[in-house]
Amino acid sequence: MKLSKRAENVQASPIRKLMPFANNAKKKGTHIYHLNIGQPDIETPKEMLNVYKNFAEKVLAYGPSQGLELYRNNLVKYYQKHQIEIKADDIIVTTAGSEAIVFALLTACDEGDEVIIPEPFYTNYNGFATMTGVKIVPLTTYAENGFALPSSEKISKLITPRTRAIMLCNPGNPTGAVYPKSEIERICEIAIANNLFVVSDEVYREFVYDGMVHTSILDIAGMEDLAIMVDSISKRYSACGARIGCLISKNKTFISAAIKFAQARLCPPTIDQFAANAAIDIEEKYFKTIIAEYDKRRNVVFEELQKVDDIICIKPTGAFYIIAKLPIENADDFAKWMLEEYSLNGETVMFAPAAGFYATPNVGKNEVRFAYILNENDLRKAMHIFREGLKTYQNRINT
Amino acid sequence: MKLSKRAENVQASPIRKLMPFANNAKKKGTHIYHLNIGQPDIETPKEMLNVYKNFAEKVLAYGPSQGLELYRNNLVKYYQKHQIEIKADDIIVTTAGSEAIVFALLTACDEGDEVIIPEPFYTNYNGFATMTGVKIVPLTTYAENGFALPSSEKISKLITPRTRAIMLCNPGNPTGAVYPKSEIERICEIAIANNLFVVSDEVYREFVYDGMVHTSILDIAGMEDLAIMVDSISKRYSACGARIGCLISKNKTFISAAIKFAQARLCPPTIDQFAANAAIDIEEKYFKTIIAEYDKRRNVVFEELQKVDDIICIKPTGAFYIIAKLPIENADDFAKWMLEEYSLNGETVMFAPAAGFYATPNVGKNEVRFAYILNENDLRKAMHIFREGLKTYQNRINT
Repeated sequence: MKLSKRAENVQASPIRKLMPFANNAKKKGTHIYHLNIGQPDIETPKEMLNVYKNFAEKVLAYGPSQGLELYRNNLVKYYQKHQIEIKADDIIVTTAGSEAIVFALLTACDEGDEVIIPEPFYTNYNGFATMTGVKIVPLTTYAENGFALPSSEKISKLITPRTRAIMLCNPGNPTGAVYPKSEIERICEIAIANNLFVVSDEVYREFVYDGMVHTSILDIAGMEDLAIMVDSISKRYSACGARIGCLISKNKTFISAAIKFAQARLCPPTIDQFAANAAIDIEEKYFKTIIAEYDKRRNVVFEELQKVDDIICIKPTGAFYIIAKLPIENADDFAKWMLEEYSLNGETVMFAPAAGFYATPNVGKNEVRFAYILNENDLRKAMHIFREGLKTYQNRINT
Repeated sequence: MKLSKRAENVQASPIRKLMPFANNAKKKGTHIYHLNIGQPDIETPKEMLNVYKNFAEKVLAYGPSQGLELYRNNLVKYYQKHQIEIKADDIIVTTAGSEAIVFALLTACDEGDEVIIPEPFYTNYNGFATMTGVKIVPLTTYAENGFALPSSEKISKLITPRTRAIMLCNPGNPTGAVYPKSEIERICEIAIANNLFVVSDEVYREFVYDGMVHTSILDIAGMEDLAIMVDSISKRYSACGARIGCLISKNKTFISAAIKFAQARLCPPTIDQFAANAAIDIEEKYFKTIIAEYDKRRNVVFEELQKVDDIICIKPTGAFYIIAKLPIENADDFAKWMLEEYSLNGETVMFAPAAGFYATPNVGKNEVRFAYILNENDLRKAMHIFREGLKTYQNRINT
């Protein structure tokens, strides 16, 4: 029985495909430092976990399709703290950021329409594009200049009659790049001139370092009708398993249409929304502590990477990822080799080959992404193993 | 800024569109008996609610894309109790039944492909079809014979080169119809002869009355490659807010492909899966009690409806819905009128006009669906008000 073409074509997770090799290594007794996925080790705030403990309703009922009103009202206050002025009705609570992106693509694009996305990009955008029949048009950015956005001329060249949106991830997964306000404004100028939506994935909003200030797409004047924001609590509160995100736009027609898609799936998880709601009142201190922790880790990983000869890696200013261009040909092969054949005192490191984050074929093949989601001590050890492994791999290839 | 055509075309919930009228009635102080949606009043089992209370992990982390192994293993045992023999690897845990249907359509169909569905059908199938670009081909069934499946000849006539699947809801929402095994086998013969998938939505499996036996699509010999089952815990354990369902097939290629879509959205909610897992060990007594309760309610609603002159309503044998064909022209107008203009001692009734459950234009306009999700006493009162309202409405029209 033949499956659909899209089922045959949809990308298998380029990160998860290494899992069998990791499992085999574990079976052999090798300890693996996981720097391959964005699952933070930070504890979920007690304020959230207490909501599950104290849930007192007798019926675990549907919530509204747009999300609990209580939660949406509270979200307005959260965004105010970030100088983002929206109303509760501008928000649709979604089943994590994933669903928000799917709703955004369905509402903005028909099948065959195009969305321009700077690459390397979050690899699951490919899956969402396949689900919705949307074509991703990659805008290549480079490790050499910290994955800065290309010139407006280069971007404009990618616009066709089918282009419906530009999609950004800011701060960026997998790049760690944070776009300054002037850059976001530049993108918005292009969007306004060409009547395109800008879909901005801002799930790492708080994760900025070196005094960088995050700019939301919702804070750009003149973009009321074109700005679509995607958000999630997964990384913010280390609550990836709660599956709560949201889709926000001041464009009332857009939100009304997206709500119809939301109605079809009835509602996002109910208790998890109450938990997300409790997180909003967490004191500033919580973020200061975890951002300081990630900042320290960022410095550790960057410092350790600098010890590698011929590496190209500009220090990123956001999220908790760092991409390095390595002096090897095939990072896919290297990542697999680290799991299958290498270990140092019974330990090895797992990281993500970056080619899967590019849509352009054969780009990024010598790049890897690290998620710095381990404590400083483990990170030091992991990066030492990485460097030793890389040397052995290079010598092995050269002999 | 223009939205996508699909965003413009996607059906707004025909049930939820009456909500503003209900809200206005409530503002005037009118009490509304809600028989319009399938939100059970039955208490969620303590075994499930205790899981939330006792969750002891410090990080609310991602689970696997296919669902927690613990839960999938336990689901195998649940299905065994229902004579359904599957393996844990045949299961993908989904964010409620909704996501399972979307994954099924994405995996079976390309854009423009067709799925034959007996109408009236669960109205959100329209939304899922729009999201996935699939065309629903309705197979009309009739109140007069309890919404029995039409002849094989009638079904075969609807098959075109673009047909990829037949989709059933068994027991049926909104019809309450339960298909006997011989009827499921007849559908499977057509499917096998034409190489079509059969997607079977079995979320009301336990809700069968009058000694009827439910037949799962997974229990039909020769259908290993074509049988796709969609399930959900929402109604089974009155846990609609948990958003846990699953997609099951013994067709390994189908499941492998569907997992790729599942990977894109990372995972279903984590704690809710643990809660769903705890529900599996609930004793048989739990179901006996709630099925007996629903059976009693079914009898009440049916008995009360029989008191209406010229009503067409065959007693349904499953789910918790009943459709009645009324001696009026426009049930949409009547439902609105009941909220806007009618009340009896300060009370009125909300039910679902059934036209929204049909894809064929102008069919089902004089039908309504009741969800019998209130206790016996309230149901009696609600049905009395319904009958009195109907009389007043008819007299109003006739004068």
